[in-house]
Amino acid sequence: MIDLKRKQFFNVFLSITFVLENSKYMSLIVVGTMAFDSIETPFGKSDRIIGGAATYIALSASNFIKPIKQISIIGGDFPQETLDELTARGVDLEGVEIKKDQKSFFWKGKYHLDMNERDTLDTQLNVLGEFNPIVPESYQDAEFVMLGNLVPAVQHSVLKQMKNRPKLVVMDTMNFWMETAMPDLEEVLKHVDVLLVNDSEARQLSAQFSLVKAAKEIMKMGPKYVVIKKGEHGALLFHEDQVFVAPALPLEDIFDPTGAGDTFAGGFIGHIAKTKDISFENMKSAIIIGSAMASFCVEKFGTTRLKEISKEEINDRIHSFVELVNFEIALI
Amino acid sequence: MIDLKRKQFFNVFLSITFVLENSKYMSLIVVGTMAFDSIETPFGKSDRIIGGAATYIALSASNFIKPIKQISIIGGDFPQETLDELTARGVDLEGVEIKKDQKSFFWKGKYHLDMNERDTLDTQLNVLGEFNPIVPESYQDAEFVMLGNLVPAVQHSVLKQMKNRPKLVVMDTMNFWMETAMPDLEEVLKHVDVLLVNDSEARQLSAQFSLVKAAKEIMKMGPKYVVIKKGEHGALLFHEDQVFVAPALPLEDIFDPTGAGDTFAGGFIGHIAKTKDISFENMKSAIIIGSAMASFCVEKFGTTRLKEISKEEINDRIHSFVELVNFEIALI
Repeated sequence: MIDLKRKQFFNVFLSITFVLENSKYMSLIVVGTMAFDSIETPFGKSDRIIGGAATYIALSASNFIKPIKQISIIGGDFPQETLDELTARGVDLEGVEIKKDQKSFFWKGKYHLDMNERDTLDTQLNVLGEFNPIVPESYQDAEFVMLGNLVPAVQHSVLKQMKNRPKLVVMDTMNFWMETAMPDLEEVLKHVDVLLVNDSEARQLSAQFSLVKAAKEIMKMGPKYVVIKKGEHGALLFHEDQVFVAPALPLEDIFDPTGAGDTFAGGFIGHIAKTKDISFENMKSAIIIGSAMASFCVEKFGTTRLKEISKEEINDRIHSFVELVNFEIALI
Repeated sequence: MIDLKRKQFFNVFLSITFVLENSKYMSLIVVGTMAFDSIETPFGKSDRIIGGAATYIALSASNFIKPIKQISIIGGDFPQETLDELTARGVDLEGVEIKKDQKSFFWKGKYHLDMNERDTLDTQLNVLGEFNPIVPESYQDAEFVMLGNLVPAVQHSVLKQMKNRPKLVVMDTMNFWMETAMPDLEEVLKHVDVLLVNDSEARQLSAQFSLVKAAKEIMKMGPKYVVIKKGEHGALLFHEDQVFVAPALPLEDIFDPTGAGDTFAGGFIGHIAKTKDISFENMKSAIIIGSAMASFCVEKFGTTRLKEISKEEINDRIHSFVELVNFEIALI
C-alpha cells in the first residue's frame, strides 16, 4: 500500500532586516554591577579580573545596539582603560557613579566540574553597599531597560525614576534575593515584562518543581514572559500557553561560566532593542542570539572572549544554532 | 544607514514519504525483558504492572513498523492477555521463551521529584537468570536489531546468531553493566552502530564529564552514532563531528518515567526500520519521533498511555515538537 502523506513546511530562516543603526530612538538602559572577580575553575585560575553583570551585559549588547546607557557604581580602583573600551563600544557612562576614594565590588568564586553549581568564596560589597542610582535626564528617552542582578529595591528605584513606562523591562535576579529580600523582589516583579532566571531559581521563586508550573506561577507575579536558563541544557521561553525550547551549543569544555547569564541577557535585550519588536516570535530569536553570545563568553576567562569576537564570528555561531536544531520530519 | 542582510533558508519540514507497509523486508528484532514492575512516584503507586524494556520498545515501535520479532523470556505468570495485545499489534512472539513453572522478572522502584534519579527497592531476576536467547530461523531476515538493556553477553549472543550482519544495530545499556560486566560490554559495543545512553551513563562509560568528549570516546569503542538522553532536557545525537540537539516536551507533570527510555528507543528504531534510511539526517527525525513517543509514556503509569494513543495523537505530538524549536533569525 502506498501512503501519500500531507506536506507541510516549517521555516527556520534568516530573514532580511532593515535596521536604522545608531538611532537615538534605539536606546537601552543597562543597570547592574561593574566589578572585579577572582575565579577558579577546573581549567585554571584568574586573579582580580574585570567582571560585573552590567559589564558583561553591555559588552554583549553592544554588538547589536548603540548607545547603551549604563547605570552602575565603581570605585577609584576600576581601570580607566576598561571605561575607555566601553565608551568606544558605544556605552554611555554618564549614569556610572565613580567613588574615587572607595573600592569596587569584588566577588571570588570557584566552579567544579558541574558548572551549574558554584561556591562563593568571598564577597566584598565596597561601593555597592551605598548604591542609590540616579537616572540621568539624558537616559529618559530609553525604550528598553535591562535590570541586571542587583538588590531588588535598587532595581525598582531605577524603574520608579523613569518618566515614561519603557516599552520593555527585562530583569535578572538570583536566589540570594529570594532568601533575603522577597517582599522587595515581589514588588519589582510587578513592573517587569520579562524575567530571566535559571532553573533552580525558578523553582525557588515559584515553589514548584515542574518548570512549566514554575513559569506559570511566575507569570502570575507580574512578568508576561519568563525565560528559564538551564546552562548546558539550553533555555525555555514561556508566554501565556506558548513555549519555546532553545538549545545550548554542546561544548567540549566550559572554560569559565562567569558572566554567561549576563552575556545571554545582553544578547537577548540587545537584539530586542535593535529590532524594537517585543513579540513572542522575536523573543525566540532573541534567546538564540543570547545563547550564541553566552557560548562565546565561556570559551575564555572573564570578559576576554567577549571583547575579541567579530560580527562574522557571531553570524557563524548563529548559523551553528540553526543547524543544531534543524530537522525534517514526516507524519506517520 | 540601511543595512540589507543576506537571506538564507533553513527548512524544518514535513516531507512526503512513500511507505510500503507490512513488507517482509521491514522487519525489526527487539531483544529485552518482559517483566512486572512495582512503581512509586510522587504522584502515586502501582502494584505489579506489566513492564520490561522489550515490552515498551515493542509497544512504541509497533506504531511505525510490523512485524516486530520479539526475543525475550517470561514466566507462567505473564498474562496471556498482554501477549494477545502484542500479537494484535504485529509483535511476533516466536522468540519469546515461556518457562511455565517459573516467575517473570520483577523490578520495584521509587522515583523522587527529580525524576532523573530513582531508587531500586527490589530486583527478582527469576527467569532472567537463565536467559539464553535463541534467534528463530524466521527472524534471520531482519535488517534492524534493537538490543534493549540486558546483560551485555546476552545482547552479544543474539548478534552472534545472526547469519547476515543487520543493516543497523541499536543498543541500550545501563551503569550496572559498566560496574559488573565492563569487558563484555566493551566487546558487544564493537558490533553496535548506535548506542543509546543517558548523560550519567555516557560520563561513566567514557570517564569524561563533557558530553561532547564522552560521545567522542564512546565512538572510539565501536558505535558510529551516540544518542545521549537527558530526560526533561532532551537528547543529543553525535556522529563524527556532527551534533543534533532534540528538545524534550516541557510537561507540567511527569507522572511515571518508567519505560520512557525504552519507549524512546522503540520510536527511534521503529522510524528507522520503517524508512530504512540510516543517514544522520533521518536519525535526527528518529530522535524527534522517539522523544514524542516518550512524552506520551510518562503521562500515565506503566504502559497504560502507550496502549491507547492514536496515529492522530502521535502526529499532533510530532507537530508540537516542530513548533517547540521553530524560530526565525536574522544575521547581525
